[in-house]
Amino acid sequence: MAAEGVRALAFDVFGTVVDWRGAVMREVTEMGLAVDAGEFADAWQAGYAPAMAQVRSGELPWTNLDGLHRMILDELLERFAVSGLDEPAKDDLNRAWHRLTPWPDAVKGLTRLRERFVLATLSNGNVALLTNMAKHAGLPWDCILSAELVELYKPDREVYLMAASYLGLEPEEVMMVAAHPADLRAAAAVGLRTAFVARPDEHEPGGEGESGDKFDVSATDFEDLAEKLGDLIQE
Amino acid sequence: MAAEGVRALAFDVFGTVVDWRGAVMREVTEMGLAVDAGEFADAWQAGYAPAMAQVRSGELPWTNLDGLHRMILDELLERFAVSGLDEPAKDDLNRAWHRLTPWPDAVKGLTRLRERFVLATLSNGNVALLTNMAKHAGLPWDCILSAELVELYKPDREVYLMAASYLGLEPEEVMMVAAHPADLRAAAAVGLRTAFVARPDEHEPGGEGESGDKFDVSATDFEDLAEKLGDLIQE
Repeated sequence: MAAEGVRALAFDVFGTVVDWRGAVMREVTEMGLAVDAGEFADAWQAGYAPAMAQVRSGELPWTNLDGLHRMILDELLERFAVSGLDEPAKDDLNRAWHRLTPWPDAVKGLTRLRERFVLATLSNGNVALLTNMAKHAGLPWDCILSAELVELYKPDREVYLMAASYLGLEPEEVMMVAAHPADLRAAAAVGLRTAFVARPDEHEPGGEGESGDKFDVSATDFEDLAEKLGDLIQE
Repeated sequence: MAAEGVRALAFDVFGTVVDWRGAVMREVTEMGLAVDAGEFADAWQAGYAPAMAQVRSGELPWTNLDGLHRMILDELLERFAVSGLDEPAKDDLNRAWHRLTPWPDAVKGLTRLRERFVLATLSNGNVALLTNMAKHAGLPWDCILSAELVELYKPDREVYLMAASYLGLEPEEVMMVAAHPADLRAAAAVGLRTAFVARPDEHEPGGEGESGDKFDVSATDFEDLAEKLGDLIQE
């Protein structure tokens, strides 16, 4: 059985649990920035992978995600010719990522899953970001785990192994849940189980779409995941 | 005002949030061990400080609290002449510390405090222990922080500074809550605020009793703490 022995679920967060684009657009609009909110949100998100790559290559010293978001924001404000934001306003805008909103099924699905499993985040978001987001959005995590705890970023293998280790579990007792095949592939490579959750509404420029991968479970949303893991375990 | 600017509360757990002695005694009794449950619980707890001291001095390599509890348990089973426990039974008994029960005011008080503050553990218990305990006892933490994350034990200063850092806060924005003056003294020394909560029912052999220390807040339990912090902030 594909989910036998699974004790904890480790969740990717951006795109898998929360709709980063809608929330960032809303904050940009509410702040009254004279930019196209969708373009601005996409450009901010597009800066993320290259900035992480700089940390992973050692070109940048360890910088957590709040730090990377802020570096990218400072460039964007220049590129989009936004002026007149003072330091507290910039800091507040940067914290838009602490206030992302969950997909409609997320809280209900997590609440069901939590009856049976330990639920942890396993995100490249830093601990404060994930903690504030959970509080803001009512996400019922049992534990906040972040790549920040090992000063690395997914898909580095140490991040997945760290999660199993801090949860006191073997890798095969932890199932990674993500909307991104690459994340699941890296988790599987070090022995974690995998659950793919489709998030077709995630607007990811150059996103991955269909993949040829085989995961232990595939679900359409978190409620479907709760259903499927419940069925599998009761079999 | 003593609590102005406080954003997060960091809680000592053993003795402050949960009644370790009652719960360990109950598990020892339920397992049918032919020992005096109170004596056994006290001896287990008494092994904790010397074992931590061995890690802190470097005499033992880094070992998390589950590991120390197990070392002590193995000695105790010999000392109390308990035989016949197989490996799964010993492991289950060691996990009694994952199933400790909260003081009667704890969940209600934390639930109130959580409306206003980020609530984190800051315990020498390891992440898995604290996560499982929270799930078992319904403790509404926003974030599990543990000395394990820096492979040190309180009262080492790095543990308190780690909490502020992961929460994205300055030390003075974090208030340490504990029933043990020494823990609060160490937190204050690196700039955290301090709240003392009296736990006269904690049975700690050689416990600290009254101290001459001045803390930012002193409360009789967590509901009283919620009251006092609410009042202070509304002043």
